Amino acid sequence: MNSATLYISGYVPLMTAHLPFFDDDNTSSDQILLALRQSVDNIDAALIHMLAERFRHTQAIGKLKAKFSLPPADPKRETQQIARLRRLAQEAHLDPDFAEKFLNFIIREVICHHEAIAAKNPKK
Amino acid sequence: MNSATLYISGYVPLMTAHLPFFDDDNTSSDQILLALRQSVDNIDAALIHMLAERFRHTQAIGKLKAKFSLPPADPKRETQQIARLRRLAQEAHLDPDFAEKFLNFIIREVICHHEAIAAKNPKK
Repeated sequence: MNSATLYISGYVPLMTAHLPFFDDDNTSSDQILLALRQSVDNIDAALIHMLAERFRHTQAIGKLKAKFSLPPADPKRETQQIARLRRLAQEAHLDPDFAEKFLNFIIREVICHHEAIAAKNPKK
Repeated sequence: MNSATLYISGYVPLMTAHLPFFDDDNTSSDQILLALRQSVDNIDAALIHMLAERFRHTQAIGKLKAKFSLPPADPKRETQQIARLRRLAQEAHLDPDFAEKFLNFIIREVICHHEAIAAKNPKK
């Protein structure tokens, strides 16, 4: 009885069922851990690329705001974003509190960028 | 000269060129801001869904670790993840320091989840 699949909850084997070595009930816990980590690595690559694209857009917003002397932060917009992401998180079975913390983490970074752009481009 | 496109750097109009109202040089800064924010909202929805999928996998890892009494944190794995994400970030023109901060933010949350799972599932 050394098969990890016999011990852990049902969706773990399902997540690893596409892997070549998952062809019987003798898959070890090491193999399952490796398979799950490979998926996490793929997801992380996707996240990094989406974040890169997000920052391309927020940098454009930063330049626009600097040019038209708009404030770097926009509390009304942020409130709407938080409410929307909490709802999306709930639909995706992600902890809405974590989604909110995540957005705040990103927004803090974006505002720093906006302030840096504004400092480099004082209004003429 | 009220056209925002005349003032801001070249890639902002390019980013908004797919929008129906972007048909001349008279697009206002409000319209460009709205267009950029719509893209940010789409990207955020993608990020939330990727994060949800990431947590499905790390929860499975947490259960596996709890069952086999593996430690919630794995510093060697984390070092490899950070080096890889910094490289991916550089390729995607994302600040590698931000990518590292982002991964640390996510890992802190994941370790909390793993510890909670381990506390609920003491080894028999």
